[in-house]
Formats: sequence, structure tokens, C-alpha cells
Amino acid sequence: MTLNILVAPSGFKESLDVDDVVAAISEGCRRALPECTILKAPMVDGGEGFTKALVNATGGKLHEIMVTGPVGQTVSSFFGMLGGKDRRTAVIEMAAAAGLSLVPRDQRDPTRTTSYGVGELILAALDAGAKRILIGCGDSGINDGGAGMAQALGARLLDANNICIGRGGAALANLSRIDISGLDPRLRETQIDAAVNWHNVLLGDRGVARVFGPQKGATPRQVQSLEEALEIYALLLNRDLDLDLGHRNGSGASGGLGTGLIAFAGARLHPRFNIVMQYLEFDSLLKSADLVITAEGALDGQSPFGKVPCEVAQRARKRNIPTIALAGTIGSGVCETFETGIDAFASILKRPCTLEDAISDAGKLLRNASEDALRMVLVGSRLKVA
Amino acid sequence: MTLNILVAPSGFKESLDVDDVVAAISEGCRRALPECTILKAPMVDGGEGFTKALVNATGGKLHEIMVTGPVGQTVSSFFGMLGGKDRRTAVIEMAAAAGLSLVPRDQRDPTRTTSYGVGELILAALDAGAKRILIGCGDSGINDGGAGMAQALGARLLDANNICIGRGGAALANLSRIDISGLDPRLRETQIDAAVNWHNVLLGDRGVARVFGPQKGATPRQVQSLEEALEIYALLLNRDLDLDLGHRNGSGASGGLGTGLIAFAGARLHPRFNIVMQYLEFDSLLKSADLVITAEGALDGQSPFGKVPCEVAQRARKRNIPTIALAGTIGSGVCETFETGIDAFASILKRPCTLEDAISDAGKLLRNASEDALRMVLVGSRLKVA
Repeated sequence: MTLNILVAPSGFKESLDVDDVVAAISEGCRRALPECTILKAPMVDGGEGFTKALVNATGGKLHEIMVTGPVGQTVSSFFGMLGGKDRRTAVIEMAAAAGLSLVPRDQRDPTRTTSYGVGELILAALDAGAKRILIGCGDSGINDGGAGMAQALGARLLDANNICIGRGGAALANLSRIDISGLDPRLRETQIDAAVNWHNVLLGDRGVARVFGPQKGATPRQVQSLEEALEIYALLLNRDLDLDLGHRNGSGASGGLGTGLIAFAGARLHPRFNIVMQYLEFDSLLKSADLVITAEGALDGQSPFGKVPCEVAQRARKRNIPTIALAGTIGSGVCETFETGIDAFASILKRPCTLEDAISDAGKLLRNASEDALRMVLVGSRLKVA
Repeated sequence: MTLNILVAPSGFKESLDVDDVVAAISEGCRRALPECTILKAPMVDGGEGFTKALVNATGGKLHEIMVTGPVGQTVSSFFGMLGGKDRRTAVIEMAAAAGLSLVPRDQRDPTRTTSYGVGELILAALDAGAKRILIGCGDSGINDGGAGMAQALGARLLDANNICIGRGGAALANLSRIDISGLDPRLRETQIDAAVNWHNVLLGDRGVARVFGPQKGATPRQVQSLEEALEIYALLLNRDLDLDLGHRNGSGASGGLGTGLIAFAGARLHPRFNIVMQYLEFDSLLKSADLVITAEGALDGQSPFGKVPCEVAQRARKRNIPTIALAGTIGSGVCETFETGIDAFASILKRPCTLEDAISDAGKLLRNASEDALRMVLVGSRLKVA
């Protein structure tokens, strides 16, 4: 018997895409144990890479299209159609129309960015004949609760003077009535499933404004006004559409797009990796594995809240397969990852260095760290611990 | 059965003494595996800590004494007398009289520092009734080939005018004749064993001047003049004492003190850890161990040349006991440590940081790294690798 190693990492933000990460770990493992068998499961969440990963896994096709970007500019975007038996299924990643990387650094005002382009991608997918749409949430640059998307799909968000409110989360403070009579009728016949971070909710201390507002550039005052605007939004969704979404799981995904997807597109939300792992056939790979190696740029107390390493570890633990995690930075609260099934972790760093050096050298560091970690594991394989 | 772990690290230069290192590793191991048994072997080389470690291991006693320091100042120094059956054995560490830490930073001129105080320590040990003397070499601040020690012991190093040469390595350029008729006669009846870095030689590319001169503050010109002075010294030792020492193992130990110890004190040189491990009863601890954890501030291509981790690993490998090494910095050439029996290594770093931060936080980092490494080992203990 040799060792079957399932390599199931995330990409490293700002340094390595997931395929590079898989390649580096695989090479490191082969150096430590040339006869090992590597099984590859490049993990994506609902953010950047979601469409490409699912299209590639099924032999589908990408479609390019121009849409409205998060600051109102026209941007080049895309959606995918899966291949094979799912060829009437479209795949959309919201980040392709409203991602943070589409917001110029000097325009990072999270009270004004819009998800309008996501609605345009959905319409384009319907135009292309989609009967089912998978929507990936993640890496968003917006905080509008999906209001922009709703407007693109035909909903009317009106102020006290019956005039359509403007774009962006702050404009929701003026919302007085929601009219969905103009929604595209095809939405009713379309199954829409969204892959979301299950732990994100629209309102409150773990809500969109307070948790993600600052990350997207909001000042404390903007955070407060966004929170109040989103409360009004939730209140009117409740009054006009009879939907209580403010604290539902996933309602805060992608700046609250989760809320809009439920309310206006009739979407069902799913923990994002359930969809991703289904199409990547993760479980069948896991069945053959003796050891799982996962990785992400950082591993810390936030990781149990829906990050790749912990999602992978949870599934491995159910089959009693040990999981090790590699990361550029091991941060505070990391011990909480043990609860999710991470059995051991290691940093990729080997000497004092700056973050910039670590990022620019990440590929080599990760390859070496994989080799080093597997050697440590192999030491253990020589021991008997009763 | 539980796991017996032999903790056999070096101190971390400028941050943790060896007892702190042992304590940190032990605590980390117990966190990962509370039921493990820790065996402790704090490793010292011949440098700072040598005397105290051997005195403590045998229940001996320290003796304080004033001697001439490396720049000619009077310094407070010490030697030890072992306890028990070895109570006529003295222990001296050369660093206590001629160590780098005794050279003020603004006087780091390695052409002028002297080993004179080492000779005074030897005389004091003889005065105290020593029949055998163990001398530890390491952490030296001198480059005089042991000439100062020779003068203290009664040898005359004369120039062309039959006048005694001055102190320091550069003065050896004036050496014209060596007269040992005045050496203390007790030296002939005393067994002197020196613990040296076996790989250090007096002359040439791996010699005292070229390898260690720059570390002690020598300019390129000073390195060259030191090398030439030491060549004259070796030539006259050959002509006047019939000793060919320039490239003998250990002759370059502690700025060439190894050469002087052979020539003037009749010492036998030994690879330093042979002496240290004998008194620490290392082999009997090793017999009971399932796993060895060693550590040093840095692990790199220099480690196989007599550093603690590799010395420990070599002995463990003979008994087929796996060894893992922890270090603050994993440097280039580290793969060469595998040849010595290191099976796996890990850095204590977990995130980008400066050297200063790593040093000031070393205790906590090492404790955590020990826990993390042992967890990685325990993952392996669950696997079967055929």
C-alpha cells in the first residue's frame, strides 16, 4: 500500500490561484514520498473562479457579455453554461459583475456600489436558455442587499414620492415601497440555487454592514448608516413581500445579495461548498484518500466560519481521514480549527520576512512547506502511539 | 504504551538559554499529547554554559577568579570542579576568559584579542588540585591561536630580537622562535581534554582567519594579515616543537586555541559533543526514547558541521529513532541535514515578522511550534505507509 493524498486547498488571495496551490502541494508531497498517489480537488468558494471551475469540471462553455459594474461603469463580464447532462444549467459568479476587484481603489465607497450587473447576468443566462442557474457568492464589492440586481430584474424600489431610489446600499434609507409586478416572468420557471457563505446574515453584529463594510472601505459613520438603510430594506421586504430575511443564514452573503436572491429571484441558498463539492465530485475522491492536505492564505479563528480548510476537514473527519492544513499566516484563534477536524497545521514560512516577500515567494514556500509537513507526518508513521 | 520523547536542543543564541528551550518544547509536547513522557537533555557545546552544565550534572562546584580578559582588561571569570568520582577533574570554558561577549563592541579588533586568561584559568585549576582538566571551546572572541594562553602557562614567544612578542593574533607575524622550557611543569602530569568543534582547522579556506575573522569583526585586509601571521605560527610550531597542526581537526577551534592546547598544554582534542554527552548520560536517555526533538536558532547547510541538531540526530539514527528539528530560521542548504539523521524540520514562525520580533517572542513561538510539530507527527501515527 502506498499513501493516497487528497490535495484540496483554496487559492491564496493576492498570490496563488487554486491550480497553482494544488500544483505546489503536489510537488512537495512527491519530494517527500515519491511513491504517493495525489488526488486533486482544487477548491473554490462562490467567489472568483467559481464559474470557471464548474465549467471546466463539466466540459461546459463560457459566455462573455458586457454589464453594468459596481460603480456604474460598463465592464466585460461572463457566465457559463455547464456541459454534459447539465447543459441547460447556467453558472454565474456575482464577483464577475459586482466584485471588489471591479471597484477602483479610489472609488471604494461601499454605500454606493451596486449589484445591478448581477441581474443583467441572470437575464443573459435566461436569454441563453438556462432552466437552472447556479449563482456563486463571494469576493463582492457591494453592500446593497441585492437591490441593484432586483432593479435589473424588473422590480421597482420606490421612495415616498413613488420615484425609484438610486443605486447603492445607502439609497435604501429612502425606500418606502417594493413593487415586484414587473419582475421578469421567466424567473418563476427557473430553479436558482446560490452558493453562499452560510454564516453571513444581513443585519446586526455579524451582519453585512458591521462585518464587511469596513473591509470594503466604509468609515464608522458609513457602517452605521448602511446598517440603518438595510434595516429599512428588511422591514419593507417583510411588509410588502412577507419575507423575514434579516437574520436568515446566507442573507448577508456578498453584501446582502443573498437577501435579494431569495426575495426577487426565488433562489434557494446553500452552504457554498455543498454545490462546489458536488460538481467537483469531492466525496468520491475523499473515499480513496488516506490523508487530506488543505491550505489557504490564512488559517485562524475565522476559518471555521465557512473557509475552505475547515469545510474540507469537516467532511474528512466524517470518514476518519486525518487532515493537515498549510497557511501563509497562522493567526489567533487557530486552535478553534481543531474542532472542525483539522488535525495539524503548519505555516509556509521558514525565516523572518515581510508579508510582501511571503506573497511573492508563496509558490516555492508552499512547495517546501508541503514537503516538510509530509516528512513530519512520515516520522509519525514510524511510531506506535497507544 | 505512551510516547517517550527525548528533548535535546541547543540554546537559541541571543534569545533563549538551553533550559528555557527544553521547557518550551516540553510544554508544547504535553499540550499535543498530555500522556507523553519527556526525557530532558539540554545540550551545550564547548561554549557558554559548558562548565555550568557539567558541574550541575555531576553535583560539582563553581570557583570564581579574576583573569585577564580578551582586550587586556581584568574580568570576573570562573572554572568548575566536578562532583562525585570525578572530583579531581576541573572544567573550564574558554569563553569565560576569552569569549566574544567579553569583547566590548567598540573594541572588536580580532587581530589584537588574547587568550591569556584561558592560561590563567588552567593555572588556577592546577592550583586547586586538578589532575584532569576538561576545556570547552566555543563562543570565542579571539584569533591568537592560543598564543596568549601559552604565554600565561610560561612559554616564551620571541621575535627576531629575542624579545617576547605582543598579544593578539597579528603579533604572531613577528614570531621567530618558541621556547617552552618555562612551561608550568604540572602540565606534564595533567590529563587535559578539550571539547572542540572538530571541523575547525587553523589555516586555509576553512581556517580561523577566513571563516571566523569576519564574524569577529575583521576587515578583509585584517583577515589576510591574520592568515599570514597564523601561517608563521604553524611553521615555527613545526620547526621548534615538531608539531604539524595547521590542518589538524580541531586546531582551529576557538580562534586557534585548539592549536595552542595541543602544543603547550599537551591536550587531546575531542569532538565537543563526545565529552558533553558522556557527562550528560545522553546515550542512556536515548535508549529509552521513541522520538527525539532537537532545536537550534538556525538550521541550515552549516548545521552538519558540528551543530547540536545534527550531532543529536546522528546518534539517534544509529538506534533507528526518528529525530525532528525545530528552528527560528530554516536556511539554505538545510536538506543536507537529512544526511545526518534529521527526518523532518519545522520553523517556529507562523506569520510574517521581523527577526527582532521572532527573537523577543521565541519562547512562545517555540512552545507552539513544538505542539504543532507533534500534532503533525501524531497524524502520521494514524497512517500506515507501506
